[in-house]
Amino acid sequence: MTKDLSTNLRVCVVGAGKMGADHIERLAGRIVGAEVTVVVDADLARAQKAAIPPAVAVSDIGQALDREDVNAVVIATPGFLHRDMLLQSLERDMPILCEKPLTPDSASSWEIVETEQRLGAKRIQVGFMRRFDAEYQRLRGLITSGELGELLMLHCSHRNPEVRPGFTNEMLINDSVVHEFDAIRYLTGEEIKDVQVRLGRVTRQAHSGQHDPQHVLIETESGVLADVEIFANAQFGYQVATQAVFEKGIVNIGEDGGPYVRAAGRWGGEVTASFIDRFKSAYDDEVQSWVDAARQGEIGGPTAWDGYATSACCEAGVAAQKSGEKVKVSIKTKPDIYR
Amino acid sequence: MTKDLSTNLRVCVVGAGKMGADHIERLAGRIVGAEVTVVVDADLARAQKAAIPPAVAVSDIGQALDREDVNAVVIATPGFLHRDMLLQSLERDMPILCEKPLTPDSASSWEIVETEQRLGAKRIQVGFMRRFDAEYQRLRGLITSGELGELLMLHCSHRNPEVRPGFTNEMLINDSVVHEFDAIRYLTGEEIKDVQVRLGRVTRQAHSGQHDPQHVLIETESGVLADVEIFANAQFGYQVATQAVFEKGIVNIGEDGGPYVRAAGRWGGEVTASFIDRFKSAYDDEVQSWVDAARQGEIGGPTAWDGYATSACCEAGVAAQKSGEKVKVSIKTKPDIYR
Amino acid sequence: MTKDLSTNLRVCVVGAGKMGADHIERLAGRIVGAEVTVVVDADLARAQKAAIPPAVAVSDIGQALDREDVNAVVIATPGFLHRDMLLQSLERDMPILCEKPLTPDSASSWEIVETEQRLGAKRIQVGFMRRFDAEYQRLRGLITSGELGELLMLHCSHRNPEVRPGFTNEMLINDSVVHEFDAIRYLTGEEIKDVQVRLGRVTRQAHSGQHDPQHVLIETESGVLADVEIFANAQFGYQVATQAVFEKGIVNIGEDGGPYVRAAGRWGGEVTASFIDRFKSAYDDEVQSWVDAARQGEIGGPTAWDGYATSACCEAGVAAQKSGEKVKVSIKTKPDIYR
Amino acid sequence: MTKDLSTNLRVCVVGAGKMGADHIERLAGRIVGAEVTVVVDADLARAQKAAIPPAVAVSDIGQALDREDVNAVVIATPGFLHRDMLLQSLERDMPILCEKPLTPDSASSWEIVETEQRLGAKRIQVGFMRRFDAEYQRLRGLITSGELGELLMLHCSHRNPEVRPGFTNEMLINDSVVHEFDAIRYLTGEEIKDVQVRLGRVTRQAHSGQHDPQHVLIETESGVLADVEIFANAQFGYQVATQAVFEKGIVNIGEDGGPYVRAAGRWGGEVTASFIDRFKSAYDDEVQSWVDAARQGEIGGPTAWDGYATSACCEAGVAAQKSGEKVKVSIKTKPDIYR
Repeated sequence: MTKDLSTNLRVCVVGAGKMGADHIERLAGRIVGAEVTVVVDADLARAQKAAIPPAVAVSDIGQALDREDVNAVVIATPGFLHRDMLLQSLERDMPILCEKPLTPDSASSWEIVETEQRLGAKRIQVGFMRRFDAEYQRLRGLITSGELGELLMLHCSHRNPEVRPGFTNEMLINDSVVHEFDAIRYLTGEEIKDVQVRLGRVTRQAHSGQHDPQHVLIETESGVLADVEIFANAQFGYQVATQAVFEKGIVNIGEDGGPYVRAAGRWGGEVTASFIDRFKSAYDDEVQSWVDAARQGEIGGPTAWDGYATSACCEAGVAAQKSGEKVKVSIKTKPDIYR
Repeated sequence: MTKDLSTNLRVCVVGAGKMGADHIERLAGRIVGAEVTVVVDADLARAQKAAIPPAVAVSDIGQALDREDVNAVVIATPGFLHRDMLLQSLERDMPILCEKPLTPDSASSWEIVETEQRLGAKRIQVGFMRRFDAEYQRLRGLITSGELGELLMLHCSHRNPEVRPGFTNEMLINDSVVHEFDAIRYLTGEEIKDVQVRLGRVTRQAHSGQHDPQHVLIETESGVLADVEIFANAQFGYQVATQAVFEKGIVNIGEDGGPYVRAAGRWGGEVTASFIDRFKSAYDDEVQSWVDAARQGEIGGPTAWDGYATSACCEAGVAAQKSGEKVKVSIKTKPDIYR
Repeated sequence: MTKDLSTNLRVCVVGAGKMGADHIERLAGRIVGAEVTVVVDADLARAQKAAIPPAVAVSDIGQALDREDVNAVVIATPGFLHRDMLLQSLERDMPILCEKPLTPDSASSWEIVETEQRLGAKRIQVGFMRRFDAEYQRLRGLITSGELGELLMLHCSHRNPEVRPGFTNEMLINDSVVHEFDAIRYLTGEEIKDVQVRLGRVTRQAHSGQHDPQHVLIETESGVLADVEIFANAQFGYQVATQAVFEKGIVNIGEDGGPYVRAAGRWGGEVTASFIDRFKSAYDDEVQSWVDAARQGEIGGPTAWDGYATSACCEAGVAAQKSGEKVKVSIKTKPDIYR
Repeated sequence: MTKDLSTNLRVCVVGAGKMGADHIERLAGRIVGAEVTVVVDADLARAQKAAIPPAVAVSDIGQALDREDVNAVVIATPGFLHRDMLLQSLERDMPILCEKPLTPDSASSWEIVETEQRLGAKRIQVGFMRRFDAEYQRLRGLITSGELGELLMLHCSHRNPEVRPGFTNEMLINDSVVHEFDAIRYLTGEEIKDVQVRLGRVTRQAHSGQHDPQHVLIETESGVLADVEIFANAQFGYQVATQAVFEKGIVNIGEDGGPYVRAAGRWGGEVTASFIDRFKSAYDDEVQSWVDAARQGEIGGPTAWDGYATSACCEAGVAAQKSGEKVKVSIKTKPDIYR
């Protein structure tokens, strides 16, 4: 991949919150082949604060997308705004990097998938950054190589130090477990068949109304059994780890690392503090992969189909949370352009 | 604890198979305060082979228990023989160390419990050796101390390199998961409320009819969610590990250890090869604890009640294997002597 | 740090061997704010092979440095050519990234230092990439913070899988231990006072004439005792690790990581295969730091003084190899611009 | 090994300090085939306090050794008293377990060796318990197997949390490094040729006059280079670790273990607090090995020769501490009974 400055992506970043600002800084300082030309936020002051000169700030996405100096879009707004922004961007046939979720429900996600299919080409890459984590990639490699036999089970844990009071049980599925839904699909190369949720003791650190932690049971098409401990107020730090059980061995990813210290009667090191520390390189590689592909008229990561399929998983997950029963995931046939 | 040779236990070991022979060697060479005087096996030649002089070999348990030089019993026969042997031993009011299971079903286990209660004192210690493993004990200590807050979940794995062809799915519960049933009861100090079993992909290393691995879901009275991956033909080695999820932290026991080698492009060490390597110290400490207590007229470990309660869990587990549904564990009220 | 395309560095890479080609690929694909415009190599075909269009290939450095489209230099030729190239580049007052060593001996290194001082500003950054390794930086932070008290000792190991037959004992110091000389200076913030070398058993994997491994004993101005195991034919893989001994604790960096596998009776993972795997991120960060600083008229890493001081350490090391005695490091006073 | 109660060792423990009391408790509660019948201490009250009935306490060793109920001796007094006690015990031709050092200097150690040789049989086992540590034994096995090629280097660290004010620099060698002298001899199967000591920065935790830590450089007959970091006031905990460098790999023993905790932003576990935690099993196995062998008229561990040879190493070590130079270890020819 070489830099041809004449084809640099000229990116419009939509949404100047934490995630958007993070992408702006990344594109400005660490990504080759792209520059941020416009930052959009309904809150113009926020857009202005996040924009790094010579990028300009505007408050309207339509106006931004029509500019001469914009030929690519990064969508980093809250999920409920994604549908309209995706449709406007697709209308202009621009390469899009859309933060997850694609949209908040499978019906609107399917609408996006259908629109994209009508365009006849993939334009949307969805922000499941774990696919760019070096260890997830090596685990995927071990699975496809067959070196340790067939994959049988996946034990996943996803622990956050804490969440804000308004973080609902539905968000536990839609914003957190959604990553595992996609990661399990990525690792196995299969769709998810059904979901069950176990609710047990609740941590006293949970805010009112939060049932935290939860244990989510997942099965793929071929019968791989996955389970996810989702723990939103785990206090000790941030941890995302997976243990894969093969016919001939066990593989762990997401183990702890860093300087190893012996002090004050203890040995060990620091737990990563947040998803930003844990997945910093993965975010960089995700965006670079998108930029590299977009300059060739392609996408470089998970598709709108992946966004749609995980939406369907989330719907089953939320239903399973409520019923306590195993809930089947309902998905349509995969359109040709995603095969 | 001092050695008073005048009160040495004079032990009759019943069953001269692998486990019995192992106990004979242990009592002869590593345990203080006890000596094996008689070895019983229906197969007299096997008893003779296992007996270490001056111990004598006989083929009938009744005859053995009536000897002058016998004042304690270790039962290491197959489980289906336990009931009768326990009753004969209880009749003579001797201290008993009974390998797990207490008996193969909860009805006969309850009969033993009732008999023991009529004696008015605990005579039976059941061979759940994990309670004597240093790390299980430290985890138990962490739970009771409250240092990391309340316990919320337990993720357990129990992996054997392989089992023989005749090892059935019921045995997977009754002989293997039974250890986790007791360990979870020990760690939480609670009874188990219900059991569910997930069946997914089967390893090609499984013998005909074996559904291996399985994922067993367990909930305790207070709502602690435990899950057990039981994998009987895991090939790579023997591993028993538990991850405990607390309100303020995560604790793993059963991690790998030993010399750390870097060679041929890899770093790491040897996995334990079998339960005997893994739990050697625990077995020694279990038997020493029983001997020390028995010389004082007491028992030094899990009781007949623990044997009964785990039998009830196993029955629920086998039913859950068949139905795919969550099955309630049915247990009677705990008699006073076990409180 | 933002990208101002108008001030992109236009880099001339001198030397199109392995290291040079690596820097060309890095600058083209992963570094923001720079582009390679010219590749120089006496072997023009090699330069042409390494150049990524639109960069051009030439065979003469003087001609290259006079081009309009060149305003910065990366020197990646063998060390004995560095002196002349540095002088030619300094003459044109360009920012320079010079692979280690600065020059092969302290006399010529001092000449470079003096020339640079006459310019009145630092132009040369030397390629000691370990200073950009995240763990070295965290260890440096722990030392300066005083959190664990004063630093007392450093135990270093530097192991290569193998070296070619012509790799001499002097090169073991000049090409390998030179990294530890700089790393120890970086970590302690002190100069090195003396060096001793212990020669013991020789591995049968060593080529004729190579005394491998060696144990190098180093002391800094304040009395920090460092020791380096240098092992050039260690077979098992590549490993660079340091253990720092503080008044109140011990810190290890360079521990193994990556997916953790249990298979075939063993637990563990893969050792890094070469310095390129081990220090990939450090090289990227080194070059990015140089580019970012050079665009501001500064340098972003170790200086010509660091190059000179490590040359002096290497001379003491080679003398110590021969004498078996402790040899004092002889260095001149540090010029003002490096203070 | 079976228990024949008729041949139980009837042990006189000499010295009722910390180490002696520890041995009394061990022999009483965990060792098979031995009983403590007499405890000797010049301070009779201390002997009485340490004695576990039915053992009796006396103040004079000669009187104790003449008793009918004594047929073996454990010497656990301060080292300067060992020579006389050993001679008195050898006179009575009893099996002896003597805590290290054999005697405080090589001249008196040689006297013991000569006396024992005149007896024509080994009676003395010296308390270098590391030879009974499972990991040292496995490392020894790796060395003799040749599996990883020849051994080239040993990097040892020996860290105590703290020592009392009166602990001298000589004691650092004689009481602490003495263990590494023996361990290096054990691991390599070779005598030590010379010793050098490096003195650098001193921790502020050292008491007046203590030069702590020190770096001790050791070479064996065949040229294996060993180095020992001895750190007496390391604060963080107790740690004894060795890294062995082979032609084809690297092996670490003494790594940390135990429950693995993630809490309060950190991962890791507890460092062992003292040599008693670290080597508890080794002490038990050492004493059991002595008892088992003594009941057969043999010894079951390191010999008086090992005691003598390490005394010679210590003398070289103390001289090296003072001179800063490499000091040759001077030892006599090994008598036949130790071959």
